[in-house]
Amino acid sequence: MYKGGETDMKKRSVLLLVVVSMLCGMVLTMVFNQLPDAAGPDGGGTGLLASIGKKSDGLEQDEAEKLGTALEIIESNYYKDVDRDKLLDGAINGMMEALGDPYSNYMGKVTAEQFSESIEGSFSGIGAEVTSVDGYVEVVSPIKGSPAEKAGLRAKDVILSVNGESLQGLDLNAAVAKIRGPKGSKAVLTVKRPGSESSIEFQITRDDVDLETVTSRMEANGVGVIEISQFSLNTGERFAEELKSLESQGMKGLLIDVRNNPGGVLSVVIDIAGQFVPKGELIVQVENKAGKREEYLSKGSSKPYPVALLMNKGSASASEILAGALQQSAGAVLIGEHSFGKGTVQTSFDKQFDDGSLLKVTIAKWLTPNGSWIHEKGIEPDLQVSQPDYFAVAPLDKKQTLKFDMNSEDVTNVQIMLEAVGYEPGRKDGYYDRATEKAVKSFQSASKLKASGIVDEQTAKALEAALIEEIQDPGNDTQLNRGIAEVVKEIKSQASNK
Amino acid sequence: MYKGGETDMKKRSVLLLVVVSMLCGMVLTMVFNQLPDAAGPDGGGTGLLASIGKKSDGLEQDEAEKLGTALEIIESNYYKDVDRDKLLDGAINGMMEALGDPYSNYMGKVTAEQFSESIEGSFSGIGAEVTSVDGYVEVVSPIKGSPAEKAGLRAKDVILSVNGESLQGLDLNAAVAKIRGPKGSKAVLTVKRPGSESSIEFQITRDDVDLETVTSRMEANGVGVIEISQFSLNTGERFAEELKSLESQGMKGLLIDVRNNPGGVLSVVIDIAGQFVPKGELIVQVENKAGKREEYLSKGSSKPYPVALLMNKGSASASEILAGALQQSAGAVLIGEHSFGKGTVQTSFDKQFDDGSLLKVTIAKWLTPNGSWIHEKGIEPDLQVSQPDYFAVAPLDKKQTLKFDMNSEDVTNVQIMLEAVGYEPGRKDGYYDRATEKAVKSFQSASKLKASGIVDEQTAKALEAALIEEIQDPGNDTQLNRGIAEVVKEIKSQASNK
Repeated sequence: MYKGGETDMKKRSVLLLVVVSMLCGMVLTMVFNQLPDAAGPDGGGTGLLASIGKKSDGLEQDEAEKLGTALEIIESNYYKDVDRDKLLDGAINGMMEALGDPYSNYMGKVTAEQFSESIEGSFSGIGAEVTSVDGYVEVVSPIKGSPAEKAGLRAKDVILSVNGESLQGLDLNAAVAKIRGPKGSKAVLTVKRPGSESSIEFQITRDDVDLETVTSRMEANGVGVIEISQFSLNTGERFAEELKSLESQGMKGLLIDVRNNPGGVLSVVIDIAGQFVPKGELIVQVENKAGKREEYLSKGSSKPYPVALLMNKGSASASEILAGALQQSAGAVLIGEHSFGKGTVQTSFDKQFDDGSLLKVTIAKWLTPNGSWIHEKGIEPDLQVSQPDYFAVAPLDKKQTLKFDMNSEDVTNVQIMLEAVGYEPGRKDGYYDRATEKAVKSFQSASKLKASGIVDEQTAKALEAALIEEIQDPGNDTQLNRGIAEVVKEIKSQASNK
Repeated sequence: MYKGGETDMKKRSVLLLVVVSMLCGMVLTMVFNQLPDAAGPDGGGTGLLASIGKKSDGLEQDEAEKLGTALEIIESNYYKDVDRDKLLDGAINGMMEALGDPYSNYMGKVTAEQFSESIEGSFSGIGAEVTSVDGYVEVVSPIKGSPAEKAGLRAKDVILSVNGESLQGLDLNAAVAKIRGPKGSKAVLTVKRPGSESSIEFQITRDDVDLETVTSRMEANGVGVIEISQFSLNTGERFAEELKSLESQGMKGLLIDVRNNPGGVLSVVIDIAGQFVPKGELIVQVENKAGKREEYLSKGSSKPYPVALLMNKGSASASEILAGALQQSAGAVLIGEHSFGKGTVQTSFDKQFDDGSLLKVTIAKWLTPNGSWIHEKGIEPDLQVSQPDYFAVAPLDKKQTLKFDMNSEDVTNVQIMLEAVGYEPGRKDGYYDRATEKAVKSFQSASKLKASGIVDEQTAKALEAALIEEIQDPGNDTQLNRGIAEVVKEIKSQASNK
């Protein structure tokens, strides 16, 4: 584990948000309330949904008998006790798996609830993003306006126990399950704060907490940056707020950042894209099984300032709809890496079940304005920009000392780190040569460690700490900086054309 | 792919036998005919099976409705056409998966047939073991007494087409499916034989072919070696034949080789073990869900000569029963590697389905004579002996040229190969240093290649060919030789005690 490192922390925070929000992975949901018999939609989509919910037959007699026979055989003969509900859930999971579509899933009650929270962009809890550090649950940050923030919980606080139950030894998901709870319920947190000897107790009443899916800031040269972490139901409104605020500050160009954004609600991304695509032009097309296409056209208008979009291989689904729409219908430049490649639309069916379970089923393809299906292909950026290699470097195994003439992946990682913090190791292929040894010695001298040329635990930790500083330095976010530079260039070009 | 290399060929032959026989992996089967309603056994096992087939209820109304609703939702809404039979098979697969037991499986008709052939130790076809070499189907060896052998098919023959259908470009499984067919049907094979210019045609009438699961030979010093590749229904009889033959040749000690033997039929291994375990002593105990134990006692007697068993991490299930019985009840020495660790018994249910499908369900644990459950643990050998590392080396990527100062897994493999064929590379960690270069040059000179010190395609092929010779040399089978030496030692010790 990468103690406190931002690369890892970022991953782990995302992991946690996965628990809290995007538990079900890449998603592009059409939200509409189904009638109990799945007869039709009542909102969200329109004509296309007429094809949704056409009734097919349930189980035929012989089909029910075969499934029943299998169930009987298992229950009567298996060498351990069998949970019948698990078998039935397994049967539905198995049907979904038979489709061979990773985006069609069956969810039991608990998972279904988390999925709904993800779509809604809010959940009930204390509202703290947490991560796991050396087996301890550490607060990354309390969410703005949340019960946790109001109670005074701070970043770096370590949560030792909840309502008397220790979190020690639990994995992050299990710990989060204990911290969360229904609105109105009380969580008594015992917390160890860095710098204070004794532990502190917090009484926090859980409440509905909005996930922060949109953040913005104004960069130099009048470039506004809006980061969208996922497209939840409340993301459209939040985006409009942030955009308005940036515009009122005199923004001259906009960079939208959807890196690592796994997707969300179709109507929300259409709404956001509509703020940049000229009225009446295509945002996205949705094609059903029969090949019938539904066109989603912009009801908004284009902006007078240039717009660019930052994406990477974690940008999926709704993020790719936004990328396609901005590129093909709004003339925006796409910057960064090839996107994920998910070109299908799902919808949820839960009213048909009375036990809280839910089926998420792929109901359609979506196509970009020019009619291409990017599924399993992704979208190519106009400007290919990668992050420095050290953004993705793995933490070192502190148990092993590394030295001259060794050869391993850990040596590669040390070499990448050395280069990142300014000590040229000569090579980055995992062979610990004399040049690498020299670079280690230089780093050790500068870090006031014994210049042994050997990477022991202390040196490894110092190297990682130095690396984290580099990663945290916004100046090193190559993609972001290239994106901002591109917007600046377009602002200038626009000005000179006037 | 490792062209013609024995390691790989051996793997691929095994792979093929998987197709022909052990398609369903590790298995320990209790064979008995179930009544259509699974009411009881009629052979094979005894008292324990009274617990098999106690009837439970089929699908309840609400359960059938939930499954039916899921099926309806999928059929009505999924964005592609859906094969209803696949969904139902998926449902049963899903139930089996919910058990979390890799040995409980649902098989459709074709897989079920192959499984039955595996249990029976015979199949219908031409009877040639084949492998894939550079995309061509090459005969490894025709099975003794098979139609293929009678027709004159030989090792190294390449099968180009069957009944006019080319095998080129098919994967091995697909090619085998074309070669096989029902008893009495004709296969016209077009074959390219090494050394002959034009292709040859063979007309072969397919027949039932017995898999050769037992082979034996007499080594020096009167040590007999019997290799069992799997425990099929006909393996017991074949084992008795081979044992009798060795004994009639004056065998003084026996080494049984169950390396890479994935298991088979419970009654068969009990029968084989019974030839070495003193009468009335425990061979294996089978424990059902309720904790009730069935003891299987030897009806045979111990042998006057010493017996040892050779096993490795591919020795599973019935092989481990044999290992446990011989070690704990017959005083045999276990030699080689830690065994696989599969301590459960399965049985098949197919009479309940009228469409040829089959459920293989784990019905019990088995315990060694001293009562230990080796599941997921395996059995420790008395003498730990590993094969040389080059037995497991991966083939080289011929597209890449390897040279001084490079660093990769392919370099590691080159170094392992160099050492195996007698050119000490200095290191085996993947760094191509001067010593490795020197070893490559020496190898090249000895092989009449240009001594460039660079591993190009030609050198790589020569190196692999030289390695294959080493692997094919029985003198290098460290485990086997140690096993034979151990038996010799025991023969001597027995003689001196007399």
